[in-house]
Amino acid sequence: MITKLQVIALLFAVFWARRNRPAPTPQPKLATNSYLHFPDPQPAPQNPAYPRENATIVMLARNEELRGVLESMRSLEDRFNRKYHYPWIFYNDVPFDSDFIEATSLMASGHVFYELVPAEDWNPPHFIDHRRMQDALDEMGRKNIIYGNRLSYHNMCHYNSGFFYKQRRLLQYEWYMRVEPDVEYFCDFAYDPFRLMRERNKKYAFVLALNEYELTIPTLWDTVAEFARENPQYIHPNNSIKFLTTNETDLNHAHDLPASHTDYNLCHFWSNFEIASLDFFRGEAYNAYFDHLDRRGGFYYERWGDAPVHSIGVGLLLDRDQIHHFDDIGYYHVPYASCPGLADLRNRRRCLCKETDPDGTKKLEPMDVRVFSCLPRWWRYGGGKRFLEETEFAHEFKG
Amino acid sequence: MITKLQVIALLFAVFWARRNRPAPTPQPKLATNSYLHFPDPQPAPQNPAYPRENATIVMLARNEELRGVLESMRSLEDRFNRKYHYPWIFYNDVPFDSDFIEATSLMASGHVFYELVPAEDWNPPHFIDHRRMQDALDEMGRKNIIYGNRLSYHNMCHYNSGFFYKQRRLLQYEWYMRVEPDVEYFCDFAYDPFRLMRERNKKYAFVLALNEYELTIPTLWDTVAEFARENPQYIHPNNSIKFLTTNETDLNHAHDLPASHTDYNLCHFWSNFEIASLDFFRGEAYNAYFDHLDRRGGFYYERWGDAPVHSIGVGLLLDRDQIHHFDDIGYYHVPYASCPGLADLRNRRRCLCKETDPDGTKKLEPMDVRVFSCLPRWWRYGGGKRFLEETEFAHEFKG
Repeated sequence: MITKLQVIALLFAVFWARRNRPAPTPQPKLATNSYLHFPDPQPAPQNPAYPRENATIVMLARNEELRGVLESMRSLEDRFNRKYHYPWIFYNDVPFDSDFIEATSLMASGHVFYELVPAEDWNPPHFIDHRRMQDALDEMGRKNIIYGNRLSYHNMCHYNSGFFYKQRRLLQYEWYMRVEPDVEYFCDFAYDPFRLMRERNKKYAFVLALNEYELTIPTLWDTVAEFARENPQYIHPNNSIKFLTTNETDLNHAHDLPASHTDYNLCHFWSNFEIASLDFFRGEAYNAYFDHLDRRGGFYYERWGDAPVHSIGVGLLLDRDQIHHFDDIGYYHVPYASCPGLADLRNRRRCLCKETDPDGTKKLEPMDVRVFSCLPRWWRYGGGKRFLEETEFAHEFKG
Repeated sequence: MITKLQVIALLFAVFWARRNRPAPTPQPKLATNSYLHFPDPQPAPQNPAYPRENATIVMLARNEELRGVLESMRSLEDRFNRKYHYPWIFYNDVPFDSDFIEATSLMASGHVFYELVPAEDWNPPHFIDHRRMQDALDEMGRKNIIYGNRLSYHNMCHYNSGFFYKQRRLLQYEWYMRVEPDVEYFCDFAYDPFRLMRERNKKYAFVLALNEYELTIPTLWDTVAEFARENPQYIHPNNSIKFLTTNETDLNHAHDLPASHTDYNLCHFWSNFEIASLDFFRGEAYNAYFDHLDRRGGFYYERWGDAPVHSIGVGLLLDRDQIHHFDDIGYYHVPYASCPGLADLRNRRRCLCKETDPDGTKKLEPMDVRVFSCLPRWWRYGGGKRFLEETEFAHEFKG
């Protein structure tokens, strides 16, 4: 016999089970042996003085890059994250080893996750013709296109262009910051950049903008143009097309350009540093754009990089006012550096900008004065120069 | 007419004035244009989680060394002092310029003082024969003795040997930590080293011990021996004489050494890193020792360094159990490095030990395995190897 109490208990159990079931989300392919940071699966406690956004730091890394990974972590932790304790999520196409896990988990101030990229997100998609791909790789090798003949490099660009944001561990987050091994942050962060993104309705942020190597993307722009013709509904009316198409020789008379002037000038945001909205990448527009590009095979028959693919994507699909240039973040990734321009700001943020290449021989120049920098074009045709906004956030600093 | 109230007020005023008069201290010569950190003369607030000892960080630096000074500060602040906010005291024989003051004061987490070394504490003392000194400098130049012909280097060694601890700004402190430009601390500090010094009754601490260049100190040991003969009351019965006099060839049969075996083996604590008691240096024994050495003129007629002078001083005048080897502090000063030996400790302290010289060509070896290291002698004849004591302090860590 079933009592009334038992019925109530049963109903409650069912309700409880449903209530605690995760909301249905698009089911990505799962990494079957992803695993948690071993000592403590709990997220780091919030520091009331430094509240966190719904954000995470993301790094794709190999076990053998451990030293460079630790250098990057030390720098970002000491300059920024030690106050906020944002989680770190590491991705790899093979499992991380225990040396990697032990050292990185102790270098982090936040929770750390170690994730395996599923093979189907890493390897060439089924529609890639392997014979044609191998011929293309060989040809790129003969042409000395940097990393052109390395399949793993193509896989990485392909993954970073269209798969990182689909990974299961990232689904709960709204924002990510991309970090690579062997980078350095020259200055203390005076505020939480994720908070700036949210409060100012930004969707994508960069530090450096420069020219892509033309031989890696012979048909990329035509493919993009094809996508834009077929899908005009995705192209934002206040896009960054002028930033992407104004060429050196046009800089002094860009207002005279004919409407048909649409050649890609190779300018892109250097994507080894990125702070951006995962929702934007997970959204319909970007995925229609990526899928269109992916089907054309240029990640494997050419060597399309995730930097121009991201940059053209955000440049066409986003309002250009949603793209932010962090000109107050000092940053270095071999061989280029960016250092804030104001001496007073450099002092207040304790900047120590690298002055030479690691071997000590070549003097590093700030990227914004290099001839192949695209920053002047961004200041003129993109989001403009907005140096002073740092002061609004700087009150958070020192603690 | 004087009322009773007026008399009481007058007595109270006199009492108050006397009460607030500083206690009489030995009056050192004052730097006439020493000046405070300009924005805020208040000491940094105590962090209840990281209480400070009565200690300060001290650096002798030149204006043109600013970049190296900032590198050292960044490293020590991020690895240790950002939690404690110990003050920094900078000394220079000429006034610091505003670029130096602005950048260093913003790099520090604690109060910063900028002090001028009085000329009489910097220049050769009156009893030095300038003609003889100049001949000696020229001769050292001909013999290629490093820095031997630079008067400023002799002044620095002389100042660091017998004058730094007499400076007025240091009088209120019990402990100091010496820092130089362009050094690096490889690991997070797991505890306050000043606190270890106080709690364990230590008076002098070092990281690296190595051999001095013999030609810089031809008569130093004889002068020391003379002092010891004339002043046996200052020589500590549990001194470090075996550490200072055991030679390479004796290492395997040191127990057989005759009592007369007293040649200096050139071993010294590398004094660019020092944590020590100012009271010890200000005390009678060390000053009798220093004055004896100073009068013999070897700081100027030879090139006695503050490292052997400090080391022999503490080695003879202190109980050797009052000398501490910080084997858990990773440290680099060109061209030598020290890195904690346990992989687990390196991970827990977030160590990133330099692996090559700054030009990237030469692999750095840890000092304890170099043939000219004096650490094995310290472990055998000095304070011994005490690696495990760090664990007792490590509970303070992470925050």
